[in-house]
Amino acid sequence: MGLLLLTNEARAKTWKRVFDDAGEEIILSEAAVSNPAAVSCLACWVPPADLSVYPNLKALLSTGAGVDQMPPLPEGVALVRCDVAGISEMVRDWVLMAVLMLQRQMPLYLQQARAGQWETHLTRSASAFRVGIMGMGRIGQLAARALGACGFDVAGYSRSGRPVEGCEIYGPDRLAAFLGRTDILVCLLPLTAETRGMLNADLFAQLPDGAMLVHAGRGAQLDMAALRGALDSGRLASAMIDVTDPEPLPEGHWAWTHPQLIVTPHIGAETDAEAGAQHALEVVRALRAGAPIPGQVDRDAGY
Amino acid sequence: MGLLLLTNEARAKTWKRVFDDAGEEIILSEAAVSNPAAVSCLACWVPPADLSVYPNLKALLSTGAGVDQMPPLPEGVALVRCDVAGISEMVRDWVLMAVLMLQRQMPLYLQQARAGQWETHLTRSASAFRVGIMGMGRIGQLAARALGACGFDVAGYSRSGRPVEGCEIYGPDRLAAFLGRTDILVCLLPLTAETRGMLNADLFAQLPDGAMLVHAGRGAQLDMAALRGALDSGRLASAMIDVTDPEPLPEGHWAWTHPQLIVTPHIGAETDAEAGAQHALEVVRALRAGAPIPGQVDRDAGY
Ligand SMILES: NC(=O)c1ccc[n+]([C@@H]2O[C@H](COP(=O)([O-])OP(=O)(O)OC[C@H]3O[C@@H](n4cnc5c(N)ncnc54)[C@H](OP(=O)(O)O)[C@@H]3O)[C@@H](O)[C@H]2O)c1
Ligand SMILES: NC(=O)c1ccc[n+]([C@@H]2O[C@H](COP(=O)([O-])OP(=O)(O)OC[C@H]3O[C@@H](n4cnc5c(N)ncnc54)[C@H](OP(=O)(O)O)[C@@H]3O)[C@@H](O)[C@H]2O)c1
Repeated sequence: MGLLLLTNEARAKTWKRVFDDAGEEIILSEAAVSNPAAVSCLACWVPPADLSVYPNLKALLSTGAGVDQMPPLPEGVALVRCDVAGISEMVRDWVLMAVLMLQRQMPLYLQQARAGQWETHLTRSASAFRVGIMGMGRIGQLAARALGACGFDVAGYSRSGRPVEGCEIYGPDRLAAFLGRTDILVCLLPLTAETRGMLNADLFAQLPDGAMLVHAGRGAQLDMAALRGALDSGRLASAMIDVTDPEPLPEGHWAWTHPQLIVTPHIGAETDAEAGAQHALEVVRALRAGAPIPGQVDRDAGY
Repeated sequence: MGLLLLTNEARAKTWKRVFDDAGEEIILSEAAVSNPAAVSCLACWVPPADLSVYPNLKALLSTGAGVDQMPPLPEGVALVRCDVAGISEMVRDWVLMAVLMLQRQMPLYLQQARAGQWETHLTRSASAFRVGIMGMGRIGQLAARALGACGFDVAGYSRSGRPVEGCEIYGPDRLAAFLGRTDILVCLLPLTAETRGMLNADLFAQLPDGAMLVHAGRGAQLDMAALRGALDSGRLASAMIDVTDPEPLPEGHWAWTHPQLIVTPHIGAETDAEAGAQHALEVVRALRAGAPIPGQVDRDAGY
């Protein structure tokens, strides 16, 4: 019973080495599958449409941190997220970088650099910025701690409003108050029916004038047209987003070159392939042993 | 006895408000000085050539964090650096941002964005990068702590080799070993006779292939031509620099648009003008009272 991996060349190469070294079977394309009944685990970002081709499939493993892109699965197939140590820390670091880049007006300085312009602008220190983090789960809490250590004034927003040490937490009944006190809004929400399209013109209108947006949740949470409008009107001073709608962002899309916006291609949790391969190896072996599967997602919770 | 301030318009405006509110005299250009004998304190980045015009000058105050740009001063004139709470933290945050930007391959992603290209590259986690900080003073130690908290493997280099908790320190006799273990080199050295031109081809040759450079010390420490050579040969994978030689960097200079290099216009310690003005106010009042001057530099030490 082996693993079928559908991914890019670089990741495939590393996974193949790890699986070969461990004496486990790995197949790198659907075309290369000679015996579909031998595929117990499929690792990919988005699976092929017809999974019934693999009658003994036991687990569908996401090569990324999220599983919200996965379709409903046949009964008996476990949904597994890439459960690699350090993945949340990696997203935290992207968020930390993005908040610092907006505080330091990097969109403006990058623009000036392209024009060969040496001009400084006064920057307020971190303590003058109120950061508001939407989604205070694993990553949100790590981000709150790191940003707090830099001196930012951090508050959080979550569904339960559950207290988190060292930072004020707002629940959904106090969303307006949370937005009203937020200079730099950081989105780290999972994609659910409730959060789809949540970052829209109505929400931006509740932020102080000249606020900034850091988005590392999911593309479908963001109304890109509303983002453009908010940047152009000055409602938002700048933004940095790692997730987009659509994704991948097509060549020629306005967002690539908007002067107040920086886009990265969903690299928040682009972890080293080695660790991902090791986790996949554990999943394959757990399946064979009938042991608990590391990273298995509770599909009822939705996130 | 008042203050003569030579600076940009934005800073001048804030200082004027603070001084006016405090009932202290402030003059904003040499042309506006009606009585040179009434100038007790001059605040600027680089002073005018002839200071003998101001017979009662008691203090020369740098509007920036450094004083290495200041000429030798007449006997009896105190040299004062901008001693504002949070200035070291501000530089630390620039360094943190720069290290994260290089680790995350932002020079490449920014280039791709301009071309409208959505392509991801595997990134190793922070713990896979050995950061080496040259200069373990106020800012170096803050940077070491912040980078260590992100998981980077941090070591330091200083003149004395004085121990710093939580990170291995190398002295000048072990410079080669320090460079040999450093994937991301961070320069936070003061400019002295010893450190002038220190970041040169010979030093880059001692780094591992594909190392990266973050420079927030002083422009004259860096051989810009050697930097270009190292970037073009692949010896250095990328660099981010806040200080340049010359400074300001002229329009059309190759460094503005080199694809593996990001230049910011000496903004590491661009603090809010308000705090700087408050400090200047304290200096003027200390001068009048004959009290110790906050931020006075020991000119023999050189840094
Ligand atoms: N850019 C990237 O590469 C990347 C990588 C990894 C993850 N992500 C994104 O980051 C998200 C968070 O990851 P995580 O591991 O921190 O998730 P997590 O531990 O599951 O935390 C989710 C948080 O969101 C809150 N939440 C969920 N629905 C909400 C709603 N409708 N209103 C308000 N708050 C709500 C939860 O509130 P409670 O605390 O009350 O349950 C919880 O605090 C992921 O779902 C994904 O979208 C992005
Ligand atoms: N980019 C910006 O906007 C900006 C803003 C502020 C400062 N800076 C730069 O950052 C520098 C450091 O500031 P700081 O406040 O941290 O200075 P600091 O507290 O005076 O520390 C200087 C450090 O450099 C070390 N050092 C001095 N000469 C050396 C040499 N020849 N070889 C090896 N180590 C040497 C010292 O070693 P010992 O510990 O042995 O004395 C000390 O650790 C400033 O001088 C300035 O160049 C830049």
